[in-house]
Amino acid sequence: MRNALGREVPDKIGSRKVEPYAGAFAVRRTGWKAPRPQKSCVPGENKVLPSIEAAIEATGLQSGMTISFHHSFREGDRVINQVVDACARMGLKDLRLCPTALFGTHAKLVDHIKAGVVSRIEGSMNGPVGDFISQGGKLKEPATLRSHGGRWRAIESGDMQIDVAFIAASQADAYGNANGINGRTPCGPITFCMVDAQHAGKTVVVTNDLAPYPAYPLEIQQGWTDYVVVVDEVGDPEQIASGTLELTKSPARLRIARLAADAVVASPYFKDGLSFQGGAGGVSLAATMYLAEAMEKAKIVGGFVMGGGTRIMVDMLHKGLVRTILDGQAFDPIAVASLGKDPAHVIMNPGLYANADSRGCATYMLDAAFLGATEVDLDFNVNVNTHSDGRLLHGIGGHQDVAAGAKMTVITVPSIRGRLPVILDRVTTVTTPGEVIDVIVTERGLAVNPKRDDLKGALVAAGLPVRDIAEIKEEADRLVRPLGKPVFGDEVLAAIEWRDGTVIDVVRKVERWQ
Amino acid sequence: MRNALGREVPDKIGSRKVEPYAGAFAVRRTGWKAPRPQKSCVPGENKVLPSIEAAIEATGLQSGMTISFHHSFREGDRVINQVVDACARMGLKDLRLCPTALFGTHAKLVDHIKAGVVSRIEGSMNGPVGDFISQGGKLKEPATLRSHGGRWRAIESGDMQIDVAFIAASQADAYGNANGINGRTPCGPITFCMVDAQHAGKTVVVTNDLAPYPAYPLEIQQGWTDYVVVVDEVGDPEQIASGTLELTKSPARLRIARLAADAVVASPYFKDGLSFQGGAGGVSLAATMYLAEAMEKAKIVGGFVMGGGTRIMVDMLHKGLVRTILDGQAFDPIAVASLGKDPAHVIMNPGLYANADSRGCATYMLDAAFLGATEVDLDFNVNVNTHSDGRLLHGIGGHQDVAAGAKMTVITVPSIRGRLPVILDRVTTVTTPGEVIDVIVTERGLAVNPKRDDLKGALVAAGLPVRDIAEIKEEADRLVRPLGKPVFGDEVLAAIEWRDGTVIDVVRKVERWQ
Repeated sequence: MRNALGREVPDKIGSRKVEPYAGAFAVRRTGWKAPRPQKSCVPGENKVLPSIEAAIEATGLQSGMTISFHHSFREGDRVINQVVDACARMGLKDLRLCPTALFGTHAKLVDHIKAGVVSRIEGSMNGPVGDFISQGGKLKEPATLRSHGGRWRAIESGDMQIDVAFIAASQADAYGNANGINGRTPCGPITFCMVDAQHAGKTVVVTNDLAPYPAYPLEIQQGWTDYVVVVDEVGDPEQIASGTLELTKSPARLRIARLAADAVVASPYFKDGLSFQGGAGGVSLAATMYLAEAMEKAKIVGGFVMGGGTRIMVDMLHKGLVRTILDGQAFDPIAVASLGKDPAHVIMNPGLYANADSRGCATYMLDAAFLGATEVDLDFNVNVNTHSDGRLLHGIGGHQDVAAGAKMTVITVPSIRGRLPVILDRVTTVTTPGEVIDVIVTERGLAVNPKRDDLKGALVAAGLPVRDIAEIKEEADRLVRPLGKPVFGDEVLAAIEWRDGTVIDVVRKVERWQ
Repeated sequence: MRNALGREVPDKIGSRKVEPYAGAFAVRRTGWKAPRPQKSCVPGENKVLPSIEAAIEATGLQSGMTISFHHSFREGDRVINQVVDACARMGLKDLRLCPTALFGTHAKLVDHIKAGVVSRIEGSMNGPVGDFISQGGKLKEPATLRSHGGRWRAIESGDMQIDVAFIAASQADAYGNANGINGRTPCGPITFCMVDAQHAGKTVVVTNDLAPYPAYPLEIQQGWTDYVVVVDEVGDPEQIASGTLELTKSPARLRIARLAADAVVASPYFKDGLSFQGGAGGVSLAATMYLAEAMEKAKIVGGFVMGGGTRIMVDMLHKGLVRTILDGQAFDPIAVASLGKDPAHVIMNPGLYANADSRGCATYMLDAAFLGATEVDLDFNVNVNTHSDGRLLHGIGGHQDVAAGAKMTVITVPSIRGRLPVILDRVTTVTTPGEVIDVIVTERGLAVNPKRDDLKGALVAAGLPVRDIAEIKEEADRLVRPLGKPVFGDEVLAAIEWRDGTVIDVVRKVERWQ
């Protein structure tokens, strides 16, 4: 069937009936969330187990079941591999993996997929695992990718049922209170898996730093935690940022960042109380810095910045340029340290931040947001998942949630990347619909979504180089031309869910090149 | 039927089947909690309503439905009366009230009961409303009293379904993030109703201080909040303590406090990492101070103190006498201020603190606790609800939860109060079973529960005046004798739930005196 964007989506994925995407806010769910398991405990019960194997045994994890993880350590994560390796050693097969996100460090999962240890994946896949899947790597069912808010929603609604959640924590106590703020290897908030901890059949906290009771802040709470395992290593905080925190030095990208910041400054939102989403990545960081400079110069004080916390945001807080930071994951040690001591640097769980099935997301309070893309198209649709060659290399992150919420969503992209055009007639995969995109900024100028003539007027009035998106596309197309383009077959390898649980697009297998 | 303590309890209370108390840890629930409602919101929706009447209308509150409240303002609360008055003005009848606790300030509810506006109550009743009920004041069904943890459990399990939760907040933003820490009239944590906010059909935040977005700390979260109402007054923080924070000056009570502290010092728990429950009330405060002095002298550092936060606890934290405060409600402005800035002063929700249907309560990690009583008996059973004349004058608070959890639960009571003996053959009402009580301290000496011979040995070895409880009783009985005693009829006016949802005792109507 075709969804509201005209994308062909299957009726079923595995055993699950597909709801087609119907519009950014077309679905408003009523009724009830999925119930959470009852648990009990008597005083004196010991939850600490000697190994991951012991935890697997204690939880009753079996072949065919579902396990989940968070990604706060990103490239530095050491828990997913340890757990899946242990499952493999114990002879488990046919596991469904529900990580918030996988990274390059999880490349060895490819072997576990080949061996049948892992047969299904629901979660973001950055790098090798996504690449393998999109080359036709055999899963039993197509993978499902969800946004930060979409994943929270899916667990709360019961769309994704987890048997055992394994939660990496840089600090935990023996009773299972756990956090990512303190301990030997702090990774920043681990609230991504608060929802796993509450809904999973069993919850296992894995830590390398067992603190005296009570460990705080109370991100993961003892009442949800069945077992605690102490291991040598849960993750390496040095590898959290892994390049995403370098300010870009490319003149073209600095120009994009400058234009993006200028667009916000020219918008009606640039006034006291301004709120915006920063985030990591060279262009976003630069745009955030430019915007901070403009705020300082104009003497305006922001309401909140949302992130991926970074030292730039902490600087803004300490300088009084912004009243609050809402922080879902930390990208550097300065952000983590601030979370432990600045009351106005607030840990934000993805439910509050992004869950569509709630009475409002923090993203809905955003004035402006800077987001990236692998491709954009003439309808302002954005792809962040696949490359133009059809390879699935990135997760959704909060892209959909932020774009849907912010009053002014600014996509920052170079018009050409790696000798390929970035603006297409039609993106390879729709991650985020044009309906919720306001401005696309390239080094060749800005394009404003036609439905935002009000905004266009403001940017033109400020003397910014506002252009038609087709015109920018043409200019880029004159400079580069792809050597070939992929022809997709029917086989669906992965589904891209919109944040409300409908399917906005699918990733199909490349049949041949033309 | 008779429960495990030999108390006669009815088969049904209203439409609800009674589970008889079976032992302090006899019930371990499995299966599923009650589902929470799905909610939705699109960007730009306004949640702020001009009045409580408007909120009542917006929520669809009808006659016969259930409304809930928290008690963080205690005697200073201004929200319950405002809401019930508004319901009465709007012609609503037959409401079920589920407050965490009522106080003297809610005396006018008696008129609403008489007028049929309120027909059922599930919640603690301190003072006039309880008194009225226990004198035969006509509710449609017997009232139900629950502990802090028991109430949380009942809502999560679906035993108590709330249609509309009205949440007093000293600060909230227009999107419904709310707290009791900041604002014009801070009252301390309002996490008692986190569970209401998540499970109620509709949630209304009532505040007198609308802050810019985001209001933090995030006690009540926007995703749960349907509407926000701004009123002139939500409560008067000056009346939170209302006498409970005066250190006792009575020599007999100071002796009790001293003996209680000495008992802990003599116990095997008095060592580094000691954790204990303090709380308000003249004797508890004095015992906490004596214990703090002993810790300072012995150079031991406590793991955590739990409360009802007070300036005494904050002092201990700042002096380094204890690593952490776990705080469920604040009793003075110094405690509230500390909650806003000391990361080691941790807001503790009642789920974490006391919910039996969880993987462990904070109370289970307590070494020692000081608790009060209206009566105790030779089986070490404790009554905190009724007086010997049968009047229901107090709620359970956290009594059951703390007693069940602490390794050493110390009841501090005078042997004689108001010319009546406090130690009886059989308490008028069992709130907390002797099974979980370790020591009873009176001004005439300490009695140790026979099942704790280990502890008795330690206290005797320390030279403390350890005596048989029957002996202390006899001594007191020689000095005072009640002029008459109540004879109870069959009519059940209120049920006392044990924290696991079973009925431990009931309050019956006094038929006559003999």
